[in-house]
Amino acid sequence: MVIPEPTIARLCSMYRFCEDAGVDAGRQVSSAALGRELGATESSIRKDISFLGETGRSGAGYGLGLLKKKIAAALGLSRRRRTCVVGLGSLGTALLEYERLGPAGFDMVAGFDASINRLETLRTSVKLYPAYEVSDVVRRERIEVGIIAVPAAAAREAADSLAAGGVQAIVNFAPVVVRPPRPGVVVRNVDMLNELRVVAAQSFLSDSAHTPLA
Amino acid sequence: MVIPEPTIARLCSMYRFCEDAGVDAGRQVSSAALGRELGATESSIRKDISFLGETGRSGAGYGLGLLKKKIAAALGLSRRRRTCVVGLGSLGTALLEYERLGPAGFDMVAGFDASINRLETLRTSVKLYPAYEVSDVVRRERIEVGIIAVPAAAAREAADSLAAGGVQAIVNFAPVVVRPPRPGVVVRNVDMLNELRVVAAQSFLSDSAHTPLA
Repeated sequence: MVIPEPTIARLCSMYRFCEDAGVDAGRQVSSAALGRELGATESSIRKDISFLGETGRSGAGYGLGLLKKKIAAALGLSRRRRTCVVGLGSLGTALLEYERLGPAGFDMVAGFDASINRLETLRTSVKLYPAYEVSDVVRRERIEVGIIAVPAAAAREAADSLAAGGVQAIVNFAPVVVRPPRPGVVVRNVDMLNELRVVAAQSFLSDSAHTPLA
Repeated sequence: MVIPEPTIARLCSMYRFCEDAGVDAGRQVSSAALGRELGATESSIRKDISFLGETGRSGAGYGLGLLKKKIAAALGLSRRRRTCVVGLGSLGTALLEYERLGPAGFDMVAGFDASINRLETLRTSVKLYPAYEVSDVVRRERIEVGIIAVPAAAAREAADSLAAGGVQAIVNFAPVVVRPPRPGVVVRNVDMLNELRVVAAQSFLSDSAHTPLA
């Protein structure tokens, strides 16, 4: 099934919303309420949910428990996935130990860094390896998801090594756009600085909307 | 001027692409090439650039130097902005010391944490304060941009305190959707776990596209 990327992203946010509801999984929620929660229009929420097949009468709202189950099934979110981080600077280390990954099915099994000194001084329960072993370790440990947190100049090579070992899903936090090393590999580029710029720009534009040009 | 959020995000990515071109700022680039670079369609790139006014003949492509200047002017990206981080766990600390912020105009001037012990043991050149001082310090230090990296349960309060002090642009990394505490404040919610889920889902869907249902 072909599901557009913005829909996948919103369904993942909806999934988290269902998780957060916790014990209250029997609760019904309307598409309008989901839209407000996720910052999306009611009609786009309805359209997103239509990809899930039968989810209950939309007049009465969606049951959060059923919605969560349907999203997990459609997007394959209930599977566990062996995961690694390449690049153990401060951001990479934060991700290596990010406590929300495990409960969400991402088992952090390896960290890589080009600096042997870094590998020796970092205290973590995750197994660490030198960067030149990425492909071998990924293959041997059957790692499916790779997180890239290296400097920009090393990102392309990190992606190539991950893909060569068999990783099919990559999130790249290096400040450069990495394209899929080969067909069948999905790469998502996330730039933390860009997030700051976007919000600064939005704030600038909303200010200047109230300030007539001289 | 009202510029849609996806356009703002793409223009910020384009701005980074122009920056990365560095010394080669005289280079011309076509909307097709920009689209490939940013993972967007050529027509959406053209539409984004149309918000910038006159940027040169699009037949010959856009000059990267001029494009960068136009984006900066339209989105207010050349200004410096005093910035702070609330929540100094591993992610917050990584952001506090993120070396790309300064060159991009975000001057990191304060960090906040609820744990006095954390404030005393963290070694950084940024000034640190207890969390209950957020509003006062933001006001006194004229901080414009706030980064939230606290646990989910504390995110709403952090946003309220930042807004009470006068912050108008907030990036929230806590795993909960924070809505603008009041009109005029812009909040961008970024969920690292969601990025992993989206890429895992995309990979799952592209696998199952090749595997006929039994």
